[in-house]
Amino acid sequence: MKEEPSHPIQDFYPENVAHCYGCGRLNEHGLQIKSYWDGVESVCTYRPRPYHTAIPGYVYGGLIASLIDCHGTGTAAAAAYSHAGRAPGSEPPFRFVTGNLNVRYHRPTPLDADLDLRATVREIKGRRITVEVTLSARGTVCATGEVICFEMPEEMLAESP
Amino acid sequence: MKEEPSHPIQDFYPENVAHCYGCGRLNEHGLQIKSYWDGVESVCTYRPRPYHTAIPGYVYGGLIASLIDCHGTGTAAAAAYSHAGRAPGSEPPFRFVTGNLNVRYHRPTPLDADLDLRATVREIKGRRITVEVTLSARGTVCATGEVICFEMPEEMLAESP
Repeated sequence: MKEEPSHPIQDFYPENVAHCYGCGRLNEHGLQIKSYWDGVESVCTYRPRPYHTAIPGYVYGGLIASLIDCHGTGTAAAAAYSHAGRAPGSEPPFRFVTGNLNVRYHRPTPLDADLDLRATVREIKGRRITVEVTLSARGTVCATGEVICFEMPEEMLAESP
Repeated sequence: MKEEPSHPIQDFYPENVAHCYGCGRLNEHGLQIKSYWDGVESVCTYRPRPYHTAIPGYVYGGLIASLIDCHGTGTAAAAAYSHAGRAPGSEPPFRFVTGNLNVRYHRPTPLDADLDLRATVREIKGRRITVEVTLSARGTVCATGEVICFEMPEEMLAESP
């Protein structure tokens, strides 16, 4: 069912697990990506910083992997709430970690463009959610990825900083 | 044949392709990793910065992917010189880009430790080199990866910043 996303899923991460360099709203040095889930797919836009270079003019592959990774785990969390018929942020929280990340680089990604990520859920199986992600720049797919996400163990969620 | 590595392979990257955020010696904002190849395997040690957090106390998966990626392409370059029986840095230069990156996260990686990466070559096939990487902390393997590297197209190598 399509929903109207008003808040990115990362806004609902519990405070003690909101420090991720890629997606934690509490990591002031990090990328702070935002993933908006509409019930079918999630979208995220990120503008690389000028120093996120691979070779001059193109985006560093590690940044692309990072964006796909964090947009993947964010999408898994959002999908888990949907799947459970619960509002994002309702208790107990859903938060996922990555078990396996695969990224295929199809072509060089321009540095002077917004990167548009879209993710869909391929499978939900128990505590494991598999997410597929595409990353495009100016309408052209530059990379695709698969993120196998696992629900964070409760003892991790409970750990305080 | 075992060789004594005196310089990291990244020191031999041509200047116009030495700006990578992960491994470029000319990227002042980047990680500037260094990979030492001994003819059989290559090693790299990286100490995460305090803000490279996944959840507090553990390393961000995107950093792990980035290290595996850049150590992989560096190892490919070093192995290509060895395979051709040429000294690192001799002309024409070898420089690789990533076609596919796969990372498996085995366990949470502690943030307050050196990360030790080791890479070996699984296959050299024309312009494609497949590299396997392990990432350990305090002697325990935390992640493993495979990087399929392709020799950089000559027109990319020739592009000036």
